[in-house]
Amino acid sequence: MSSTIVFIGAGNVATHMSKAFLKADNKVLQVYSRTIEHAQMLADEVHADFTNDLENIRNDADIYIFSVKDDALPEILHRMPKTGGIWIHTAGSVPQHIFAPYLTNYGVIYPLQTFSKNRSVSFSEIPIFIEASNAETRKIIESLATTLSSKVYYLVGEKRQYLHLSAVFACNFANHMYTLAADILENEGIPFDILKPLITETAKKITEMSPRDAQTGPAVRFDKSVMEKHLGLLKDEEKKRIYRLLSESIHKHATQND
Amino acid sequence: MSSTIVFIGAGNVATHMSKAFLKADNKVLQVYSRTIEHAQMLADEVHADFTNDLENIRNDADIYIFSVKDDALPEILHRMPKTGGIWIHTAGSVPQHIFAPYLTNYGVIYPLQTFSKNRSVSFSEIPIFIEASNAETRKIIESLATTLSSKVYYLVGEKRQYLHLSAVFACNFANHMYTLAADILENEGIPFDILKPLITETAKKITEMSPRDAQTGPAVRFDKSVMEKHLGLLKDEEKKRIYRLLSESIHKHATQND
Repeated sequence: MSSTIVFIGAGNVATHMSKAFLKADNKVLQVYSRTIEHAQMLADEVHADFTNDLENIRNDADIYIFSVKDDALPEILHRMPKTGGIWIHTAGSVPQHIFAPYLTNYGVIYPLQTFSKNRSVSFSEIPIFIEASNAETRKIIESLATTLSSKVYYLVGEKRQYLHLSAVFACNFANHMYTLAADILENEGIPFDILKPLITETAKKITEMSPRDAQTGPAVRFDKSVMEKHLGLLKDEEKKRIYRLLSESIHKHATQND
Repeated sequence: MSSTIVFIGAGNVATHMSKAFLKADNKVLQVYSRTIEHAQMLADEVHADFTNDLENIRNDADIYIFSVKDDALPEILHRMPKTGGIWIHTAGSVPQHIFAPYLTNYGVIYPLQTFSKNRSVSFSEIPIFIEASNAETRKIIESLATTLSSKVYYLVGEKRQYLHLSAVFACNFANHMYTLAADILENEGIPFDILKPLITETAKKITEMSPRDAQTGPAVRFDKSVMEKHLGLLKDEEKKRIYRLLSESIHKHATQND
């Protein structure tokens, strides 16, 4: 069963998801973005119309996918024209009932992945968490999500927000550690490439053992002389604070288990 | 050219490195550990003798590899008997001249990787950073290291310590983010497995783009309402502090480039 879809938003998630829907034989009718160039760029890629005016949004689609910054969603919903179909957002931390004042059939499709515009991702391996306002809508959203991925789970919003929170740690914060490492090497004229096998192995290890068991390094060994040296090498106060706080936290988690 | 090697230390690095040396047709003569069971366990694996008494260490090996906690190294060196051969340590943050009071031929073999006892690692892909006290010793250490890996680099200790520091961020701190994420999910009864595709993709992304460009999530978008919600969900003060500090740091790094 193929669906007709309107995308509200043209960012990273909208880009990857709309392409994946197109590939799965759904039809993207229209792309809305506040910035007309963004709307047009994505619309061209998925053979859709585009607009930067919410009033021009078509009312005859099966599915409306809202993929915008959480902060922006209430105002957009307030200004949306009446439509048929199902409204769906893609946010980890927004309850589905944000749609309740506007229509009865709505839900959530939350793909647990990090999307960047210039990197393609195979949607079929991404865990997708759905929610729906009623049983019939759930069936439709489930079958729609199943066109994207074989790993579709039903999860209520109260749980989904913790999933999102854990993803911020496992993805955004872990990635920021790479950024800080790159900074340190850049100051010394050492190419970041040298760290790639280590980063790859660190991520691979936790597919076989728990991250707590996988931990190595001076903090878990509580090797004070190394930690003191490292704090001495760090030039800026921010990195020092992060080093101290995370080393303490690693040590605390290691000793909790002893 | 095959070498005879004594290992002082039987921890994660010693275990992986001694096995790799054995595989590369070197001979491990003896393993020392303060704890006799640890010495014996590794010695059995690499077909070597073992001891927990520094006075019993053989004096006829080509190579002595010191792979112990940085804190423990000075005392061990102080108590080592006189030997021939070359003394080598495997530490990122210890200068090679720690050996200078004891002999003239010494150096460093620092493998940039995270080692856990129960996970095998292919040494041939690990970048190895060496240092040596003189040109002749450098040749020997270089050829020894080349039996382990095709990526052998000469790097002075002043630089090596920054490499080690960057590895603490990219590996130990990144891994700790996985641990904190696992904690959050465990509290909600959600299996950690669900995060594995995200962790894998986060590590893969930086092989193609810089970690700064790869960043996504609420902090880099400066999505205040999500960040406030997340702080509200976190129960313990430590995770709250980490969330705040890292979100601020991500935002700062993102805007520096604008």
